[in-house]
Amino acid sequence: METQEIQRLKSENERLQVLLHFAQNLQAQLELDKLLYTTMEEVARILNADRCTVFLLDEEKQELWSLVAMGIEKGKEIRFPADKGIAGHVAMTGEILNIPDAYRDSRFNPEIDRKTGYRTRNMLTMPMSDKNEAIIGVFQVLNKEDGAFSHEDEELLSAISKIAATAIENSLLYEEQVESLNSFVETLSATLDTRDYITAGHSQRVTLYATTICQQMKMDKDCCEQIRYAGLLHDIGKLGVPESVLFKAGKLTDEEYAVIKNHPAVTRQILESIHFPRKLKLVPDIASTHHEKINGKGYPDGLTIDQIPLGGRVLALADVFDALTSRRQYRDREPIEKVWSIIEKDAGETFDGKVVDVFLKIPLKRIIEILEYDQREKLNPEELAPFKYLPFQWIIEIKRKDPETLTEDEQSLLKTFDRYYWRQY
Amino acid sequence: METQEIQRLKSENERLQVLLHFAQNLQAQLELDKLLYTTMEEVARILNADRCTVFLLDEEKQELWSLVAMGIEKGKEIRFPADKGIAGHVAMTGEILNIPDAYRDSRFNPEIDRKTGYRTRNMLTMPMSDKNEAIIGVFQVLNKEDGAFSHEDEELLSAISKIAATAIENSLLYEEQVESLNSFVETLSATLDTRDYITAGHSQRVTLYATTICQQMKMDKDCCEQIRYAGLLHDIGKLGVPESVLFKAGKLTDEEYAVIKNHPAVTRQILESIHFPRKLKLVPDIASTHHEKINGKGYPDGLTIDQIPLGGRVLALADVFDALTSRRQYRDREPIEKVWSIIEKDAGETFDGKVVDVFLKIPLKRIIEILEYDQREKLNPEELAPFKYLPFQWIIEIKRKDPETLTEDEQSLLKTFDRYYWRQY
Repeated sequence: METQEIQRLKSENERLQVLLHFAQNLQAQLELDKLLYTTMEEVARILNADRCTVFLLDEEKQELWSLVAMGIEKGKEIRFPADKGIAGHVAMTGEILNIPDAYRDSRFNPEIDRKTGYRTRNMLTMPMSDKNEAIIGVFQVLNKEDGAFSHEDEELLSAISKIAATAIENSLLYEEQVESLNSFVETLSATLDTRDYITAGHSQRVTLYATTICQQMKMDKDCCEQIRYAGLLHDIGKLGVPESVLFKAGKLTDEEYAVIKNHPAVTRQILESIHFPRKLKLVPDIASTHHEKINGKGYPDGLTIDQIPLGGRVLALADVFDALTSRRQYRDREPIEKVWSIIEKDAGETFDGKVVDVFLKIPLKRIIEILEYDQREKLNPEELAPFKYLPFQWIIEIKRKDPETLTEDEQSLLKTFDRYYWRQY
Repeated sequence: METQEIQRLKSENERLQVLLHFAQNLQAQLELDKLLYTTMEEVARILNADRCTVFLLDEEKQELWSLVAMGIEKGKEIRFPADKGIAGHVAMTGEILNIPDAYRDSRFNPEIDRKTGYRTRNMLTMPMSDKNEAIIGVFQVLNKEDGAFSHEDEELLSAISKIAATAIENSLLYEEQVESLNSFVETLSATLDTRDYITAGHSQRVTLYATTICQQMKMDKDCCEQIRYAGLLHDIGKLGVPESVLFKAGKLTDEEYAVIKNHPAVTRQILESIHFPRKLKLVPDIASTHHEKINGKGYPDGLTIDQIPLGGRVLALADVFDALTSRRQYRDREPIEKVWSIIEKDAGETFDGKVVDVFLKIPLKRIIEILEYDQREKLNPEELAPFKYLPFQWIIEIKRKDPETLTEDEQSLLKTFDRYYWRQY
C-alpha cells in the first residue's frame, strides 16, 4: 500500500516539477516567436514526442497560423482556414482528438505526409483556451516515441495548454503595443515626408540605407532597430520650420537659414519628451546628430567623432546619399560617380571613413531597390539578380574606367544600372 | 521509514503546487500595479504572514519604491533611497535577513512602527534578482503568524522571488511600451498644437474636457483611454492642410475651405494606418467624427447620431466648447453664458443632448482648471475650493439671474469666476 502511495506521490511530484519548469521557461519569453519556439520544443520533449506545433487562431481572418520551428524554413508562417484538417476540427469543436494510428483514421489527411515526406504515426490534438474559455489556438503533438499518447499525456497537455495560453496572451498584448508604436512612427514619418513633396519618401529611404549599413556591419538586432527609429524620426524637427521657409524657392535670409539649421535641435527636443523603451533609449541622440560632422564642423552642436553616436554617423551618410540621388524639381539625380566623389572627398571630415567603407560593400541590388523604392513594383527581379553579388563599389569602379576597356558583360550590366538610375524603364 | 518518505513527498508536493499556482496567478497579470498587488497578497498568504511588500529598484534614481496595497491609500507610491533601512541593506548587499525579533535587532528602525501604529514582531527580507543575477528589488514579509520565519520559509520565498522577478520584468517591458506610445502621442499632439499658435493647447484641452465628460458618465477605464487618445489626435489631419490656408487671415476661397473641411477625413486616413492595440481600436473612428452633427448635417460623412460613436459626440462638444472659450488674436473669450446659449441651441441638432446634460454636471472647479490649463501653476486652490461642489450649470444659472437677486456668497463666487475667466489674476 505505502509503496504504491510513494509511487503515486513521486510521479505527481515529477508532473508538478515539469509544469513548474515549463511555466518558468515560458515566462522568460515575452516575444511571440521565441515563446512559440520554446513552447513547441518543450512540449515535444515533455511528452516524449517527435514534434509539437502550436496553431494560433486569427479571429479576424478565421485562420489558424503557426511558425516553422526548425530547419531552414525556421520562422516561416504557415496559415490555413480555421476549420480545415484535424487542427481545424479541434479549433471549431473544442474536442480533444487522440489518434493512436493516423493512417487508420478517416479524419487524417495523408496528403500532407506525402508532400513533406514525414510519416505520422500517432497524434494528440488539443484546444487551447484563454481565461474566458474562448479557444485561442490548438496544440498538435505528433509521434509519441513508444506507442500512442496515453490518458495521462492528455491530462498533462491540458495543464500545459492552460499555462501556455496565458503566456501567449501576454505576449500578444506586448507585441500589439510594440507594433502599435512602430506603425505610429512609420505612419507619422511618411506623413511628414509628404508634407514636403520635394522630399517625399526621404525618411523612408534614409532609414533603409541606414539599416542596410547596420546589417552590413552585422550590428545586433536591437541596435539596428534603434537606428531604424532614429532614421524614421530624424527630420521630425522640421515641424518647427514654417512652410514658407521650408518650401522657399529663392535664397534664404540668414534668419531663415538659422531656423532650418535648428531642425536637428528641435528633433532632439521633441524626441527627448518621449519615454522610449530601454532598447530605444538612444533614438533622440542618434536622430539629432545627423548633421554633425566628425571634424566638429557640423550642426547643431559641433560634436566630434567620439561624441557622435555610431547611429548618427550612419544617418549622416544615408541622409546625404539620399539627398544627392533624389530628383528635385529643378534637377535630376546627380550621376552616381559624382555622388560618390562628393562623399569620398568628405570621408574623414564629414563622414566616418569606416561607415563609408561599409557602404561600398552593400550589394548593388539593395542600393537600386532603395533608390527606386517608390517604384518597387516595377523592378524586374530577374534583371536585377546579377547585382545581388556585386557590391556598390563595383558600379563606381566601372563608371571610372575607360568605357573602351569594359567587357561585354560589364557593359550590359552598366546599361541595366543606368536604365534604372535614370528611370528609363 | 516509508511513512516519513510519504510525509516528505506530500509536503514537497504541496510546495510545488503552491509555486505552480503562484506562477499561474502572476502570469495572468501584465499590468504592473495589478501584478504587484497580486504578488504581495499571495506571498503573505502563502507564508502565513501578516503582510508582504515588494520594493522595486529604480536604477536611475537609486531608489526603492513600492505601491500601497491596501486601505484608503491603495495605489500610493512609497519611495526612499536605495540604501536605506533593512530593505536598502538587502538591496545593496544581496543578503537574506531573517529577523525573528525585530525590537531586539539593532538593524530594525522602530521609528516606522511609531509613525504607522503597526507593531512589527518578525521579518524576512530577501533580494529579488533577474535572470542575470542583478538585483531588481526586495521582498519584505512581516509578522509570521506562529513564531518566526523558518529556513523552509526562506527557501520557499527564494523560489517565489525567482518566479516574481520574471513576471515583473515582463510587466516592466510591457508598461515601457505602453508609456512609450502614450508619451509619443502626447508629445506629437502638443507639437502639432504649437505649429498653429492660434490654437496652442487646443488638443490638450479638448482631451481634458472629453475625459472629464467620460468620468462624469462613469465610463470604464478602457473606453475613457480610447477617447483620450482620440482627443489628442483628432486634429492630426491638419498636417494635410498647407499653412498658407491654415493661417490665412482673410476670407477662404471655396477650394481652401474644402481643404480645411477635409481634415477629419485625413485624420481618419492617418490613424487607420496605425495598428492600435485592441482596446484602442476605435480611436480612428472617434477622432474622425468630431465634426459630424447628430442631425446628419456635419462633415466629412454626414453621419447621424446612431452612426457617430459616443466618443465622437463627446469630442464634438469638447471641441466647440474649447473653440468658443479660447482667446483669438482678434477677440477675447466669448462670455460663458453666450458660449452656453450657442451650445444649448445646438443640442439635439449638432450635439447629443445627453452629452450636453452631462457637461452641465461637471464640477465648476474642473472646468476652470481646464480653461486655465496653460496657467495652472497660477491657480489658487484655496480660492477655487468652493467650486469643487458647484456644477458647471451653477455659473450659467447665476449669469442668467438678475444680479440684484444674488446672495452675497453668490456675488463673491461670481467675482472669483470672472476674475479667472477674464484672466485678471
